[in-house]
Amino acid sequence: MLAPIAWRVPPRHYGPWELVVSRLTEGLVARGVDVTLFASGDSRTAASLASVVDRPYEEDDGYDVKVAECLHISAAFERAAEFDLLHNHFDFLPLTYSRLVDTPVVTTIHGLSSEQIAPVYRRYDDRVHYVAISEADRHPDLTYAATVHHGIPVQDVPVGAGSPDGALVFFGRIHPHKGTAEAIEVARRCDRPLVLAGIVQDQEYFDERVRPHLDDDRVRYLGPVAAADRDRVLGEADALLHLVSFAEPFGLSMVEAMACGTPVVGTRLGSVPEVVADGRTGFVVDDVEAAVRAVGRLGELSRADCRADVEQRFSVDRMVEGYLAVYRGVLG
Amino acid sequence: MLAPIAWRVPPRHYGPWELVVSRLTEGLVARGVDVTLFASGDSRTAASLASVVDRPYEEDDGYDVKVAECLHISAAFERAAEFDLLHNHFDFLPLTYSRLVDTPVVTTIHGLSSEQIAPVYRRYDDRVHYVAISEADRHPDLTYAATVHHGIPVQDVPVGAGSPDGALVFFGRIHPHKGTAEAIEVARRCDRPLVLAGIVQDQEYFDERVRPHLDDDRVRYLGPVAAADRDRVLGEADALLHLVSFAEPFGLSMVEAMACGTPVVGTRLGSVPEVVADGRTGFVVDDVEAAVRAVGRLGELSRADCRADVEQRFSVDRMVEGYLAVYRGVLG
Repeated sequence: MLAPIAWRVPPRHYGPWELVVSRLTEGLVARGVDVTLFASGDSRTAASLASVVDRPYEEDDGYDVKVAECLHISAAFERAAEFDLLHNHFDFLPLTYSRLVDTPVVTTIHGLSSEQIAPVYRRYDDRVHYVAISEADRHPDLTYAATVHHGIPVQDVPVGAGSPDGALVFFGRIHPHKGTAEAIEVARRCDRPLVLAGIVQDQEYFDERVRPHLDDDRVRYLGPVAAADRDRVLGEADALLHLVSFAEPFGLSMVEAMACGTPVVGTRLGSVPEVVADGRTGFVVDDVEAAVRAVGRLGELSRADCRADVEQRFSVDRMVEGYLAVYRGVLG
Repeated sequence: MLAPIAWRVPPRHYGPWELVVSRLTEGLVARGVDVTLFASGDSRTAASLASVVDRPYEEDDGYDVKVAECLHISAAFERAAEFDLLHNHFDFLPLTYSRLVDTPVVTTIHGLSSEQIAPVYRRYDDRVHYVAISEADRHPDLTYAATVHHGIPVQDVPVGAGSPDGALVFFGRIHPHKGTAEAIEVARRCDRPLVLAGIVQDQEYFDERVRPHLDDDRVRYLGPVAAADRDRVLGEADALLHLVSFAEPFGLSMVEAMACGTPVVGTRLGSVPEVVADGRTGFVVDDVEAAVRAVGRLGELSRADCRADVEQRFSVDRMVEGYLAVYRGVLG
């Protein structure tokens, strides 16, 4: 299991790819699979840990990122003969080592960050078994072994009661892509309180489009929220406003909200229509206008349905089974 | 022959690594060696050209540099079994593919850009045959197969007559490392004219330390000088002032000046003491004071000696023979 080394596995705070690697790795080990995890040396795992860097490069200025990256990747490929299969979660660079070893290589494409990196994926399409993280994120030029949605440890997530005063929640990076300003507008037009949680990724956007609306009452900003508090913040809302303006490969916060029983009002972009069962676990909308109407219909949804859908479709178990099926397919 | 793809081989203007690759490749082909050159698609060579990018990434904004780089490198390693030997000139990333192939790998270390990349060279020290470009540039932790100085096509370089009015020349990037300001000071104190040639790499340094001294008479700045004009500019000077303040791995401009018959006054740093035969083809000095005294002794040197030294020690032929000896040693 070749993890990124930007963050620890599992990540201390942020680190979405590392989080998925951790959940998958631990799930496989729990089922008796013999896994070696290539990750930063401070990672925590029940698998065998193999590391060339002591700490993730996002948390240690002492590294040259390119140096750390290539040594980490080559360390895994140099041991390829020991493994039945290599599973890469670290973007495109590992692909370029794949033809030099005999071991099958599975690669989860966590996101094609730009069309400029597509040539690498195209060039190794006949060598590497690609896994998409949503149907929406499939690139038309590539061949995929499967789509495996991310799973969360739903059994550890308490179901919340929703908000006594009808509050909505925005949960994610404060960035135009994530639709923070749209969430504020929808809440205002619905006359409902809004809670914002997440790191500020675009300070200018925050200062101009978000900060002027904060009043500690109708629109409250909590800052980044630790994992321990996440379920409470999500569970105490009547809906998650996920009004993204980009084709997000997979929106984990939608799944996290639904696990707490909180339905999602999300834009018809990227993974939203596959994650949200429109009219049952939330509403898939085309614009702010439609989002306002959707909030008015939240009463038609059941929090239990949201939770049940996550248990059925987005559990770690289901993700682990999805990957085991991929491995079996690859190994014949 | 794995060239960098920052610039064309040979480079149109700047591109010191690509220039060496071109000279070595053409020299090997001229001796009947079957060479495949992995370089940008617009490269010119008598070898077989293999390219994954049409144009060098420094001359084409359309590339993601990391993508171009790794596809270029893997293309060479995937064909390793076709070759008796791979010769890498493209820094450290190719090393990390080397253990995945059986073909011997020679790597010319054109410069350890920072101590942060040394871990990669250390990790592949027992796998890759390193060549230093000067004794001075050898890293204490690494094992080298040989030192091979760069060579130039000395037979194509006309010997210049020096300056009728005692002018000195500075030739290189305008940057504190290269000692442009020190050259100006030395020329002023020796009451000799100075000609400056080269790209401005540090604009602030140029504006503050160089520009105020330019007067189109005693201190003249020519801007970057094309290869065609280089020999004339160097040959019409009484000495090259090479008052570098850093340990330059190999100072090609010193060799180019000496080929034109022009001696070098250079700092006792990096490759200077190996390239300049102190008291015969120039003077190796410790500071500006000593440089001023050295200029006063230029009359003791012979332009013919400078030229002869390059013919003997820094020709392309000598470089090609040096690398052939390395290849023979590697292949037993």
